[in-house]
Amino acid sequence: MVKKNDNRDFSQIPRVVIKRLFKYHSALENLLSKGTVKVSSKSLSADVHVKASQLRKDLAYCGEFGTRGKGYDVKYLNGKLAEILGLHTEWNYILAGFGHVGHAFVCYEGIFRKGFNVKGIFDIDEKKIGQVFRGIEICDISKMPEIVREHNVQIGVITVPFDSGQSVCDKMIEAGITAILNFAPVLLKPKKSIFIERIDISRELVTLSHYLSHHKE
Amino acid sequence: MVKKNDNRDFSQIPRVVIKRLFKYHSALENLLSKGTVKVSSKSLSADVHVKASQLRKDLAYCGEFGTRGKGYDVKYLNGKLAEILGLHTEWNYILAGFGHVGHAFVCYEGIFRKGFNVKGIFDIDEKKIGQVFRGIEICDISKMPEIVREHNVQIGVITVPFDSGQSVCDKMIEAGITAILNFAPVLLKPKKSIFIERIDISRELVTLSHYLSHHKE
Repeated sequence: MVKKNDNRDFSQIPRVVIKRLFKYHSALENLLSKGTVKVSSKSLSADVHVKASQLRKDLAYCGEFGTRGKGYDVKYLNGKLAEILGLHTEWNYILAGFGHVGHAFVCYEGIFRKGFNVKGIFDIDEKKIGQVFRGIEICDISKMPEIVREHNVQIGVITVPFDSGQSVCDKMIEAGITAILNFAPVLLKPKKSIFIERIDISRELVTLSHYLSHHKE
Repeated sequence: MVKKNDNRDFSQIPRVVIKRLFKYHSALENLLSKGTVKVSSKSLSADVHVKASQLRKDLAYCGEFGTRGKGYDVKYLNGKLAEILGLHTEWNYILAGFGHVGHAFVCYEGIFRKGFNVKGIFDIDEKKIGQVFRGIEICDISKMPEIVREHNVQIGVITVPFDSGQSVCDKMIEAGITAILNFAPVLLKPKKSIFIERIDISRELVTLSHYLSHHKE
């Protein structure tokens, strides 16, 4: 039995599932580059260190793929996942705070390949303002609304220190940003309902200290 | 009814729960600094943007806290969470790859405060080797086993590019590292069973592009 999935509402997929879908997508990209045509859920799940039952459950959010026992069509599934993940199009972002984290972000491998393009870099340091990095002029934050409008930017990346995270978030929202990736170690309280994803390095480290404290060798 | 929780096995708590426990711990630290003595699950859950039912379920992994209707004792719960998260002690780490990501990591606010101390920094760039950063000499990777042994290091942080991630992982394991935080955009395949946590910035960005593609304003 084949269900139609053209009009599915993908907005209800939980964040944790989206992150696994991205894992599957990355593994499928790898298979595609090797010329693989079909892949079983068992083999794909082993590639990404996820249980096969979990993988099948996650893909069920996306519609029906493949025929039982015959595996998934790599190209079709990859295209469908790209569409669900919003990777079928390019995205423009701005970044505020051009210190080490900001630099690291703009230079991070894989970000361009996924279709994310930096269109504005902001800092408060007068020595940095006016410099050009990878073709982008580092600007004062007052230029943010103009740049967001001009380049149709929807994503804001916050790489400022703790104490200025909230004010930068407010300015990004005023400028029209609707999705924020936050590296500042602060829980942002947006004045308008927007989408925020936080990368908290301390939190990831703590999963290590938990492991080291409670798992015996 | 009070259950004993002294001999609980905290090693079975799922990673996703550990990450939320860290959120609660951070919020409790904040309450403690304000002198708050008791907090309800409703109030604590609102602070961290988690449902109260989820918070109660998560804390059930840890044992029994507080009395129904009277709220949690902030200091006691915070101490218990610190113990579960392995934050009751200090941890030493080494870092390989002293580019922008490596710099950003060592300088990241909040890492020292949580008791994580850098004891070795490694790079292959001869211009960097021999330089001293925050009291730590940047070394060639051949010095890794000696430094790991000398400082009783258990955590390795990988901030090298894609193509050297796996070889650095292998060297860390040989040197005696048992937990790795990986920023390199590669799925590591360790030769021995160790704990690996990966920070994949592309994956976090993709939750934004998914949101922007499928949520209407």
